[in-house]
Amino acid sequence: MYLRFFTAGLFLVICLFPSHGESATAAGQRCTRVAPGVWRVRFGQPEELTPIKFQEHPPRLEAMEKLQPVGKIPIDPADIGFSTSGRGAALKVPMTENERFYGLGMNLRVFRLKGKKIVRVSDNQTTDLGDSHAPAPIYVSSRGYGVLVDTARCASFYFGNLSANRDSAADEKESRDRKIADGVEELYRPRGPGSMFVGVDVPAARGVDLFIFAGPDLRQAVQRYNLFSGGGFVPPMWGLGVWYRASAKLDQASVMNFLREFRERHIPCDVFGLEPGWHSGCYPCTFAWSKMFPDPDGLLGETKQLGYKLNLWEHAFTRGDSPLYKPLLSWSGDFKVWGGLTPDFATAEGRKIFSDYHAKNFVDKGVSGFKLDECDHQPLSSTPWSFPEHSRFPSGLDGEQMHLLFGPLYQRTISSIYRDRNQRTFGLVRSSGPLAAPLPFALYSDAYDHRDYVRAIATSGFAGVLWCPEIRAAGSVEELYRRLQTSVFSAVTQVDCWFLKNPVWKQINKELNNEDKFMDDWQRTEAVCRNLLELRMSLLPYLYSAYADYHNSGVPPTRALVMDYPDDPAVADLDDQYMFGPSLMVAPLFAGEKQRTVYLPKGDWYDFWTGEKHVGGRKIEVSKPVDQIPVFVKGGTLLPLAKPVEYVSLDTCFDIEVRVFGSAPKSFVLYEDDGTTFDFEKGRQNLWELSWDGKSGSVRKTSRFDGPTRYKIVGWKRAGEQ
Amino acid sequence: MYLRFFTAGLFLVICLFPSHGESATAAGQRCTRVAPGVWRVRFGQPEELTPIKFQEHPPRLEAMEKLQPVGKIPIDPADIGFSTSGRGAALKVPMTENERFYGLGMNLRVFRLKGKKIVRVSDNQTTDLGDSHAPAPIYVSSRGYGVLVDTARCASFYFGNLSANRDSAADEKESRDRKIADGVEELYRPRGPGSMFVGVDVPAARGVDLFIFAGPDLRQAVQRYNLFSGGGFVPPMWGLGVWYRASAKLDQASVMNFLREFRERHIPCDVFGLEPGWHSGCYPCTFAWSKMFPDPDGLLGETKQLGYKLNLWEHAFTRGDSPLYKPLLSWSGDFKVWGGLTPDFATAEGRKIFSDYHAKNFVDKGVSGFKLDECDHQPLSSTPWSFPEHSRFPSGLDGEQMHLLFGPLYQRTISSIYRDRNQRTFGLVRSSGPLAAPLPFALYSDAYDHRDYVRAIATSGFAGVLWCPEIRAAGSVEELYRRLQTSVFSAVTQVDCWFLKNPVWKQINKELNNEDKFMDDWQRTEAVCRNLLELRMSLLPYLYSAYADYHNSGVPPTRALVMDYPDDPAVADLDDQYMFGPSLMVAPLFAGEKQRTVYLPKGDWYDFWTGEKHVGGRKIEVSKPVDQIPVFVKGGTLLPLAKPVEYVSLDTCFDIEVRVFGSAPKSFVLYEDDGTTFDFEKGRQNLWELSWDGKSGSVRKTSRFDGPTRYKIVGWKRAGEQ
Repeated sequence: MYLRFFTAGLFLVICLFPSHGESATAAGQRCTRVAPGVWRVRFGQPEELTPIKFQEHPPRLEAMEKLQPVGKIPIDPADIGFSTSGRGAALKVPMTENERFYGLGMNLRVFRLKGKKIVRVSDNQTTDLGDSHAPAPIYVSSRGYGVLVDTARCASFYFGNLSANRDSAADEKESRDRKIADGVEELYRPRGPGSMFVGVDVPAARGVDLFIFAGPDLRQAVQRYNLFSGGGFVPPMWGLGVWYRASAKLDQASVMNFLREFRERHIPCDVFGLEPGWHSGCYPCTFAWSKMFPDPDGLLGETKQLGYKLNLWEHAFTRGDSPLYKPLLSWSGDFKVWGGLTPDFATAEGRKIFSDYHAKNFVDKGVSGFKLDECDHQPLSSTPWSFPEHSRFPSGLDGEQMHLLFGPLYQRTISSIYRDRNQRTFGLVRSSGPLAAPLPFALYSDAYDHRDYVRAIATSGFAGVLWCPEIRAAGSVEELYRRLQTSVFSAVTQVDCWFLKNPVWKQINKELNNEDKFMDDWQRTEAVCRNLLELRMSLLPYLYSAYADYHNSGVPPTRALVMDYPDDPAVADLDDQYMFGPSLMVAPLFAGEKQRTVYLPKGDWYDFWTGEKHVGGRKIEVSKPVDQIPVFVKGGTLLPLAKPVEYVSLDTCFDIEVRVFGSAPKSFVLYEDDGTTFDFEKGRQNLWELSWDGKSGSVRKTSRFDGPTRYKIVGWKRAGEQ
Repeated sequence: MYLRFFTAGLFLVICLFPSHGESATAAGQRCTRVAPGVWRVRFGQPEELTPIKFQEHPPRLEAMEKLQPVGKIPIDPADIGFSTSGRGAALKVPMTENERFYGLGMNLRVFRLKGKKIVRVSDNQTTDLGDSHAPAPIYVSSRGYGVLVDTARCASFYFGNLSANRDSAADEKESRDRKIADGVEELYRPRGPGSMFVGVDVPAARGVDLFIFAGPDLRQAVQRYNLFSGGGFVPPMWGLGVWYRASAKLDQASVMNFLREFRERHIPCDVFGLEPGWHSGCYPCTFAWSKMFPDPDGLLGETKQLGYKLNLWEHAFTRGDSPLYKPLLSWSGDFKVWGGLTPDFATAEGRKIFSDYHAKNFVDKGVSGFKLDECDHQPLSSTPWSFPEHSRFPSGLDGEQMHLLFGPLYQRTISSIYRDRNQRTFGLVRSSGPLAAPLPFALYSDAYDHRDYVRAIATSGFAGVLWCPEIRAAGSVEELYRRLQTSVFSAVTQVDCWFLKNPVWKQINKELNNEDKFMDDWQRTEAVCRNLLELRMSLLPYLYSAYADYHNSGVPPTRALVMDYPDDPAVADLDDQYMFGPSLMVAPLFAGEKQRTVYLPKGDWYDFWTGEKHVGGRKIEVSKPVDQIPVFVKGGTLLPLAKPVEYVSLDTCFDIEVRVFGSAPKSFVLYEDDGTTFDFEKGRQNLWELSWDGKSGSVRKTSRFDGPTRYKIVGWKRAGEQ
């Protein structure tokens, strides 16, 4: 069941399960259990328009019931301080001295949360203040709980670096006893009983709802948050294949030549991304194909025939000569962006105008999805392009709130078109926010630091969002390989060379590429890239199953090691390694590095490439040739690896070899459905339980989905066997 | 007459002159003329606690009457848009296409205002968003008016880069007709009638008062603002002499040795700055002398005897073992800073506790003033030391408001001690705000870029604040000279070598200086520095008269050329030259530069050093030896230059030679009073009108001050004469 737009999300949600009563405490807050292991604590009079208000996917309550039961709220609401001032509302959430925090959205720069952080949408990733393409006012704790502050404001969080006055002699004595501090950290450290707390500053609000997620460990707190958000999104299977975007200057004929060459040269590719030229007059969009594409229907037909899905670039700012302009005028914000309108996707009307048009002109004609650009913001720029924070929208939202909600609302507008047609989409987006797990989009950025991109893979897992470390350029062939390897082991594999006429492996230099001057050994470079993309295709059944797990249990397909090993202090700050699916641990190499240090948590680990066994609980030095990325398989894993296909079609059946790592591996559940519709939500799905008895493997399969078989187990092989 | 604290400043102000009636317009605003050429336009329901509310100095109405009369408000209130949202209040103030804007406080990085700017106190000067030690929500226009938005919030201003929706066919047509833009500036440019405005975003407010200052030119708009603020501050004459701060590690005996050596070596110095060690245990202050100063009374006596004034470093955060801690506990913010209390200087009680203690222990014992540190803020830091924006204070202010007001309130707390004793003080402060002209403090910063420091001299003039480009260190002797030269031609001349045991000219290298290892030719370096400091002392009568003008007409002693030449397009962006007093134009050289380009506005200009005449209205290339700074004297100037004294005492009489520049110079009014009290406000002051008839000079002197004569005219000399 789907909650439709502008129904008050939460109120329906609460009715879905028995209320566990409400309690009021001395501090004036009211506490309600709203889902298994999730409590809402209300302080004061919250604002009307908050992220929860715009939630459309109901919490996955049955799935939450399957998590480890927690009967007691992990933070006593009576211990939470609340106050208001002319500025807004403020909270003090208790913490302990050695507690660690993560989250507040996906972040390219910040891993562990310390000091002050701001929940702020930004295209500028240079600060350590939390600026992010996908900020979200939820943090999770090493002590095994999560706290969502339900606000669309630019809230500030202070992790243990505030110190409140206490009207006591102890306070005075403590100051007197303090010696001169050795460093800033020591100087700023709060002291004394009751002085450790997470301070939260919510501007403009007179009250706020906190949602507190039990664990009992950090990972389960994240799972609960993701399931409460509606469960992780299961992409269409083709969405896990390879994405490519080529020069925005290619016209229809050139595009088709490009795509035919990919097939001729057996480059795996499922999705081709296109700029339809509807921003060519001036930057706002017309949403009408440019003259470069004289026959869009023909283009869609031909690409479909070649097995491609077409993904269209766009942004929402609507220019004067767009057919959408006039109808949208009354349903837009009061400031123009580049002279274009900003549709108010928080109104049913604005949303309908936009989605009806997209449905008729694109979705119903076969466009598989969209890349939603420019929906982030520039709080640190003196020439911000987007609407100002003091904008007003017909929905009642102001610009500050809309910045946090614009990405999610835009995504919901597009995704609902597909859902209404029982069709899964998968797209890209430059801004997201809280409660985003069910949204069929991955984030991307113009920031382009490989190290930061790896960190974002790790931090995306705390935030219920997916991250696509696009490859846009490379200073060297080695860098191309290293970036592509990270990309192969991430939520979406996309090469986004929108400024290169020819495939990047033919020529990495922009000028030469656009002059059709190729590298001498480009065939070798192409072969290495092809191999890496084929590796991605081999991982599809494994990754698709991991996404099913995201939906059913809330475990993100890519995540930081601290989520799987919350009690291992060695991973507390580890943000250059990450988990990929249940059993693979990835430790990317960066251009220029000959080797790197990799931390292996306790247990056995196997080199993905050689099968070599390593005993964990320690650091090792790893080197790999340029065409390989360090990947380690957890001991006790059955890893299904498919014979690569070039693209996924409705009847693709993967030939799978199961790799056996360790002597007594756990069973692996391979997930199967039709790969494209939402019928799986009604049970049309199969679980293939792979097992290994020490000598041979076996498969137990359910039979609730009776479509074409997706998998064929062609063999079993122990790690290290040739 | 002085308005005392917590009387509602403006209401009394309004009663001081006949009301000119109030008018309500369609937009719902109310317009009141509140002073000659100043109107208050009220929108909605303004917040209670705003800068005007804390104004203590009454507008100098008689002085304002002397400015060019302007009968009509320069912006029609009906043309100003006002709206509110959940976020706060917003304004649209009309502007024209080629209008230029300046102001929003003193700024190290931003000169002319373009795009988005935030009125935000910050110790971080790396942005072009307006972050400043002395932000103020007032801008002035090239069209000759000023707009003060009376708010203590972090308001954002958008100078012409917002574009509002218009529900019109024209809007649609305009979009359609637009061609692809050549660059970002063209892309973002608003178009069409009514689309040019200054957007103002005032968070949290439900209404706001605008104060609109008529010109009719830019300079007179600034003058009106400064006079409305209470008029510029006239420092004690000794405050215009040389300030020096030496190593914070010097004990009482070492300090005295240091000071005696200055006198022996005839280094001009009026003010010696001291860290009394009351932050030595941990960083908050005790306000009690440390053991390094066993006899503070003796120290004060001895320094006085040597002709020094003592200025004490402090910050306001009060540590647990301070005698002020207990009394201040109920009159402080609810967050500690470094474990210390933040006194609420907006409460009469908090202020009295702090000022009574300072009066008794320091002011009454002879301390001449204070350097108020750490009263700024770190909005861009993830480990901010200061109180958070959501703090609450007993006065009702929240932390966001307090950040803008903390510097001004702290200054008022200290300055009122002196005023109550009819004694002028002069100090330094790291944060100020709006309506600051009458406050006896100059700003300083830890940012240390010489070029930025010169820009701040220029921008301070729009903001009603004084700027002290302290010399803290130098990478070379040349840099020491260049910085010292800028400092000599600025509001306060201070060498702040708090980490050097010996005078900086003996050794610029920190380690060697503290090991008493001097440069080989230090005597030469000392001689050059002495000469420069003596030049400062020569300028004292001229500068003192400029300060009197600041008080009486609101013309800031240091200011950008655009203020004196508002119609000259060549000075619109000129921020590396500035006016010093009425007739000197300074164009500093920076270390490493052999020469520089200097723009001379129309008219004749004379080289200060050689008397060489230059015809203005053009750029010239200027080179100067390392011991000279390019300075130009406006044609038609009588420049009083004094024989330098080493320090100013109650009976100092300056021997003055009047330099004559040009053939028909205007008269110069030399200002005289007792130099230390506020008796001048009651008329105890003399004006010496210097005139030149083409062959000889004459003096006409009033006789309202009958104290010791301060000036003796010893000669007249034409420029260029040896």
